Amino acid sequence: MSTFVPQDPDYEARVRGSFERQPFMRTLGARLTRLEPGLCELELDYSPDLTQQHGYLHAGACTSIADSAGGYAAYSLMPAGSSVLAVEFKVNLLAPAQGERFLARGRVVRPGKRLTVCELEVEAWSGERCVRCLFGLQTVFCLPDTSDDPARTRP
Amino acid sequence: MSTFVPQDPDYEARVRGSFERQPFMRTLGARLTRLEPGLCELELDYSPDLTQQHGYLHAGACTSIADSAGGYAAYSLMPAGSSVLAVEFKVNLLAPAQGERFLARGRVVRPGKRLTVCELEVEAWSGERCVRCLFGLQTVFCLPDTSDDPARTRP
Amino acid sequence: MSTFVPQDPDYEARVRGSFERQPFMRTLGARLTRLEPGLCELELDYSPDLTQQHGYLHAGACTSIADSAGGYAAYSLMPAGSSVLAVEFKVNLLAPAQGERFLARGRVVRPGKRLTVCELEVEAWSGERCVRCLFGLQTVFCLPDTSDDPARTRP
Amino acid sequence: MSTFVPQDPDYEARVRGSFERQPFMRTLGARLTRLEPGLCELELDYSPDLTQQHGYLHAGACTSIADSAGGYAAYSLMPAGSSVLAVEFKVNLLAPAQGERFLARGRVVRPGKRLTVCELEVEAWSGERCVRCLFGLQTVFCLPDTSDDPARTRP
Repeated sequence: MSTFVPQDPDYEARVRGSFERQPFMRTLGARLTRLEPGLCELELDYSPDLTQQHGYLHAGACTSIADSAGGYAAYSLMPAGSSVLAVEFKVNLLAPAQGERFLARGRVVRPGKRLTVCELEVEAWSGERCVRCLFGLQTVFCLPDTSDDPARTRP
Repeated sequence: MSTFVPQDPDYEARVRGSFERQPFMRTLGARLTRLEPGLCELELDYSPDLTQQHGYLHAGACTSIADSAGGYAAYSLMPAGSSVLAVEFKVNLLAPAQGERFLARGRVVRPGKRLTVCELEVEAWSGERCVRCLFGLQTVFCLPDTSDDPARTRP
Repeated sequence: MSTFVPQDPDYEARVRGSFERQPFMRTLGARLTRLEPGLCELELDYSPDLTQQHGYLHAGACTSIADSAGGYAAYSLMPAGSSVLAVEFKVNLLAPAQGERFLARGRVVRPGKRLTVCELEVEAWSGERCVRCLFGLQTVFCLPDTSDDPARTRP
Repeated sequence: MSTFVPQDPDYEARVRGSFERQPFMRTLGARLTRLEPGLCELELDYSPDLTQQHGYLHAGACTSIADSAGGYAAYSLMPAGSSVLAVEFKVNLLAPAQGERFLARGRVVRPGKRLTVCELEVEAWSGERCVRCLFGLQTVFCLPDTSDDPARTRP
């Protein structure tokens, strides 16, 4: 469904490698479940450790997976040997993040050499029922000629 | 320094009680270190579990403590027997969140009966050196006549 | 195409009446060209009076029609006898606003009793060619039991 | 009061020249009344032509002067021979924009080679009384080696 053509044919390995190097995503329990040029989905199971005072997923946890999904959607379209940096984002919390499973989707709205704009959303799933609980917009910056992998740049 | 007069003389116990009931803040390791009417500060120590691929604090973790700080700054001015809900926020990530310790500050910019607007910031501290790494704006909604504590409303 | 059911069967007259009472829209030369429950489109012709230093439509003019389109999309779903107020919005300026004609579209993403969230976009048209130059998100507040028409409330 | 040192000693002429080339600011009636490195203030008198349906300054007009003030605050710190572009902004409308005179202030929060972040505010003045009606955050991009003046680049 995506109409973007990636500059880097190996974008998938590059994005997945970077995601694997984000310890915070592991701490949350997030999985990268879908990746296409300009599109990235992460999933997270409900856990009481991630909740706020009413038992819903904390807006911060919800935003964290949305931010990573958007960053990787943008990164999928960037050239090899580049690095990705979120500049800013804005999210509206549309409904309580209540569910068994949360799906964050980042989608490139406008790619650019330096700046890429992404749409962010998070869906809360309970069985077959789905409620969109977050909607947002994110601006991402491409740092050319920098490695995303610190192990390679700082030997 | 704050010029706001709280409606609820017991605001401190109410806010601290709510913070204690946010398991996600415990998961992150955040502590409520300062509370005044319209102002809330949370602190977080660096941990590799909270980082992104370059070893900095993940923007999501950084935003999570900013969101809670803003929500509790707003909640400190709300009446007893009310509940707080973040409607939306926008953050700019000003610098890599690199430090030993992170201080999130939420400050009420404009209180309101229903809607309160807060300024958010996070500082990254390394020894005595401090860099502001996040700056943002948040809109918070007051739900009157609802308990913040689910244990009391669902006996 | 819209799936929203308006609470007020006379929503169209109410929204169009309010739009007619916005002198700034007249100053800009904006026209309300499409209205459905939860959707509003405004159009604006290029004029050198509305430009910035490079001859493009000023981001402020572009945002002004987006803000009104979103406010009226939300207002179309509000009850009779209510008034509408934009709480906040965020826009990304995706491309230079260069064209003969500009179409602003506001679309309700999540309606609510008090708070409604809208998606905003502006397209720049040159003949048959269209470029999306603005994308945004807006939060709108419903003031129940207030007249939108000052002439009626202050006789 | 500003602590920024401009790269371009002639920043003032450059910024004022660009402001003069924004026809939309003239259409609104905005004046550039204060300029320091990293700080810009614009003023606007109330006019019925700029109002919304309740007789207040339209949020779009209010945002327009805030956007220009922020853009020029950022531009004051950019090198000679560069051009400025707003990437995105978010504003909270804190109070009805009701007054005789409106003062928009843009202030650089974090300058950068490519990206600069500004704080935006608008005050509504009635005699000596002042109410802050808009607060916002803006991201601005610096285009190096481009002229801000189309007359020079397209001879």
